[in-house]
Amino acid sequence: MAKKRVGKETVAFTTPPVLLGTATIAGPKEGKGPLGSYFHEVKSDLMMGKSSWEQAEVYLFEQSVQHLLDAVAVPLDLVDYLVGGDLLDQIMTTNMAARTLQRPLLGLYGACSTSTESLFVASTLLDGGFADHVVVATASHHNTAERQFRYPTELGVQRKETQTWTATGAGAFMLASEGVGPRITHATVGTVVDLGIKDPNNMGAAMAPAAARTIKQHLVDTGRTFADYDLILTGDLGRIGLPLARDLLEQEKVSVPKDRLADCGIMLYESEDQDVHSGGSGTACSALVFGSYLYRQLLSGDLNRILLVATGALLSPTTFQQGESVAGIAHAIAIEMLKGR
Amino acid sequence: MAKKRVGKETVAFTTPPVLLGTATIAGPKEGKGPLGSYFHEVKSDLMMGKSSWEQAEVYLFEQSVQHLLDAVAVPLDLVDYLVGGDLLDQIMTTNMAARTLQRPLLGLYGACSTSTESLFVASTLLDGGFADHVVVATASHHNTAERQFRYPTELGVQRKETQTWTATGAGAFMLASEGVGPRITHATVGTVVDLGIKDPNNMGAAMAPAAARTIKQHLVDTGRTFADYDLILTGDLGRIGLPLARDLLEQEKVSVPKDRLADCGIMLYESEDQDVHSGGSGTACSALVFGSYLYRQLLSGDLNRILLVATGALLSPTTFQQGESVAGIAHAIAIEMLKGR
Repeated sequence: MAKKRVGKETVAFTTPPVLLGTATIAGPKEGKGPLGSYFHEVKSDLMMGKSSWEQAEVYLFEQSVQHLLDAVAVPLDLVDYLVGGDLLDQIMTTNMAARTLQRPLLGLYGACSTSTESLFVASTLLDGGFADHVVVATASHHNTAERQFRYPTELGVQRKETQTWTATGAGAFMLASEGVGPRITHATVGTVVDLGIKDPNNMGAAMAPAAARTIKQHLVDTGRTFADYDLILTGDLGRIGLPLARDLLEQEKVSVPKDRLADCGIMLYESEDQDVHSGGSGTACSALVFGSYLYRQLLSGDLNRILLVATGALLSPTTFQQGESVAGIAHAIAIEMLKGR
Repeated sequence: MAKKRVGKETVAFTTPPVLLGTATIAGPKEGKGPLGSYFHEVKSDLMMGKSSWEQAEVYLFEQSVQHLLDAVAVPLDLVDYLVGGDLLDQIMTTNMAARTLQRPLLGLYGACSTSTESLFVASTLLDGGFADHVVVATASHHNTAERQFRYPTELGVQRKETQTWTATGAGAFMLASEGVGPRITHATVGTVVDLGIKDPNNMGAAMAPAAARTIKQHLVDTGRTFADYDLILTGDLGRIGLPLARDLLEQEKVSVPKDRLADCGIMLYESEDQDVHSGGSGTACSALVFGSYLYRQLLSGDLNRILLVATGALLSPTTFQQGESVAGIAHAIAIEMLKGR
């Protein structure tokens, strides 16, 4: 068996890659949420001085990387790879931003799980001896996703209570083979799970089974329990999906302490006042929450070991129109402050 | 510098991953082309017994992997990762096929460069000690791409002479850390290049600069010349893009012997009779050509060392409508029959 494998579907990094720094840019709604003060920049409008929402999304991606480079003082030409993705068809946000950034690009698509998919690929490049610095970035924009996946944004179609709100923002991460900071120690890449949910307005329910599967697999492979993590944090399950994931885990005899399981989509917005219904989602959602508040909690010692489990709903307007159900996927990344590093 | 890096943007694998086997399934037009007898299966119609072209594309992806597993006698549960992509929005072909195949999935998007992007990611997983077996697969379908990127397929809009024909088919590859077969020794991941081509019907011209950049970077990094390769094979430049790439290389003082540079998009179809205009393209194009004819040429000893440089045109209907130019990207993979292995 490959030397870095642990159990059936998990890997343990030999020299755990370091998260040297992060940068997050949030849209106006996200800036007014409970994590507003933790973002590196909050934009006051959705156009950001550009002539389309899509161009604004490209700007978010590029600017998050620029902020990151400033924050960690690593020049762009020392970045060996840029790894990331977004929600738009042909991941054009990432491709257009990479046209400006001019570094070797690996574009990924895992819907809202792209953040941890990218962190996994970046970590293997570093621990495998292929790179010294890798930038991971993801972005999404509410108004571009809305008109691509659903209805013309300006129509203002009434949203269902089960829907999540696609986050506007971007998160960028500098991973390095050496340095000081939280380290990525383990990863469990997910398998597509489809329990037959056909409602594209209930992505939390569609993704919950994938989140539960990946969390359980990770715990079985590593011999850990929820008690070994200060927090296990799912991506964008929201207020509908998170209790479903909890139920599925408990059906599988995984004990879930109430204070150890949380969800980025719930944390990003105020539940009462911000009218996001089930919570937040989007490629930026978990990147915004992890790259701001949680990263600082790790640095401050308030958290020591977390498992970030970004979740993706695998659907397109075409698959919906052709009657396909909405499959889900979730990738888990264990992040720790290691003593003596 | 990371120990496996060579020059600025190339990596050399320490234990070069082995291509244990390949499987290719081609559509009817591809089956009638010059490589028809080399494909593992040729389908006689574009629907393949399914109720939509998109479902046929999913079938092509799944079946190529099934053929591959049969050919190399590796059971599915020994496959550590499935890595691949396709051209459809949200890479739904790959996601739907992975729902059936039930292995940990890394979905990538690099347009028609996805085949070598995936071979790179798979090789780093193997050489990095994260996996023993990785399946790489890509698929495309002429009729799904046509209606997604251009016009309703049934309209039969007249095609421009500069256009390429999206290939129908799928190619799957079994990469392993041990075994007998051609090995992936080096890889150069590409950077997005955009010289301002705005015509979405001339993707060869849009991708040629990226191909030339990646080839030159690879040769500089490795200290090799064209003479060190039996063949350098671009992805889907076609009859318009290939001479442009040659010109760009020669402007950069890279000597290009006439018989050492070829293009998968030109090789896949008969130039005179098959009405494909500039040549072939699509995520399946380079996978079909490399996985069939070229792989056998390596096994037979007719070729010993090749550089496969799949090329991707980075555009979407949205970016075209918003006036963006068509950027390109190209990733190079060196494949060799190593003596004594």
